[in-house]
Amino acid sequence: MSKKIAVILSGCGVYDGAEIHESVITLLRLDQRGAQVQCFAPDIAQRHVVNHLTGEEMPESRNVLVESARIARGEVKDLREADVEDFDALIVPGGFGAAKNLSDFAVQGPGCTVQPEVLALAEAFAEAGKPVGLICISPALAAKIYGPGVTCTIGNDADTAAAIGKMGATHEDCAVTDIVEDKARKLVTTPAYMLAKSIGEAASGINKLVDRVLELTHENDA
Amino acid sequence: MSKKIAVILSGCGVYDGAEIHESVITLLRLDQRGAQVQCFAPDIAQRHVVNHLTGEEMPESRNVLVESARIARGEVKDLREADVEDFDALIVPGGFGAAKNLSDFAVQGPGCTVQPEVLALAEAFAEAGKPVGLICISPALAAKIYGPGVTCTIGNDADTAAAIGKMGATHEDCAVTDIVEDKARKLVTTPAYMLAKSIGEAASGINKLVDRVLELTHENDA
Repeated sequence: MSKKIAVILSGCGVYDGAEIHESVITLLRLDQRGAQVQCFAPDIAQRHVVNHLTGEEMPESRNVLVESARIARGEVKDLREADVEDFDALIVPGGFGAAKNLSDFAVQGPGCTVQPEVLALAEAFAEAGKPVGLICISPALAAKIYGPGVTCTIGNDADTAAAIGKMGATHEDCAVTDIVEDKARKLVTTPAYMLAKSIGEAASGINKLVDRVLELTHENDA
Repeated sequence: MSKKIAVILSGCGVYDGAEIHESVITLLRLDQRGAQVQCFAPDIAQRHVVNHLTGEEMPESRNVLVESARIARGEVKDLREADVEDFDALIVPGGFGAAKNLSDFAVQGPGCTVQPEVLALAEAFAEAGKPVGLICISPALAAKIYGPGVTCTIGNDADTAAAIGKMGATHEDCAVTDIVEDKARKLVTTPAYMLAKSIGEAASGINKLVDRVLELTHENDA
């Protein structure tokens, strides 16, 4: 029977939203492995809008749900409609949107808070023992979701790893082609563009993460 | 020696720009096959901005080059900087951006015109005998680039095929997993989301197109 996976998007673009390559690679691998996917995003304003050509802030406002719909070709729902009962696993791609819209980690560091609907849904997956995949910078949310002692990776960036450690998570260095798994919590993480020098490198780790998350959903069948 | 491929983006989002899945799948396959890629986009205003959640037009303006930078993670150049001498092949993903920003086919149909910089670059590849890949609705530009008699596909949509025929192209029906090749002109086309019911289906045809375009660049080595 085909597995149902919820994917949380955080906008559309690496500097102010969901990292587009990571999101599409995730959706592609899930589809190729026969999973059914539903994208979700919070119906909130983006922290800001970044001109991805210049890196400068733009004097305008965009909505996370509306911009996420670009990646999802319209097939995205308000995060408030997400029910853990309907899904076998959750995956959150990276991009600054995870640290600016799904949380304020980019600004507050270890003192960050996670957007309440995002936190509630992720906690529900954790409590149900359903696997979760966090990509790129999204593992910055792990300690908030699982509490102290959770193991994850954001690659090997010392400052970010230290910030995550301060929040109570145990950081493990990880190659871009690999994943880190917290077996007790069924949490799978991979560095993707925290380390990737090319889209192919990002795909190698993300494909491994998707495959492992799907395997873990089958363990729940037993 | 690694091949150099120019990719023309037309914004960021299926309804008013480049189709994101098609663009990312193209970039991923090119990277996985060892090609070097440079993205380009025209520095012009989008025809309009569409809310991808509701399908309605939004009262704002966005720039094609700036929005394309989201897909390219900032690594996109103004189309005016593109020189055919620097590249072995050209690929244009689909999305309404190809029919609204790179041309006005979505509005004018067979009476459309192609954005002058896009047309000049594509014609230069055609004249140089360098392979070109057109994805999804982008083959609507084929007759303008190559003149009457060029063979291409947009899948099997009768109205669109008729419009393309009126412009002088010969349309061949094609499955989503396949490609159509005009051998004399080294033009490769595939329907992608003109037919695809899933991202995996879109990838099957696009991967075949990318592989064939790269093979054709090697024929030029001989």
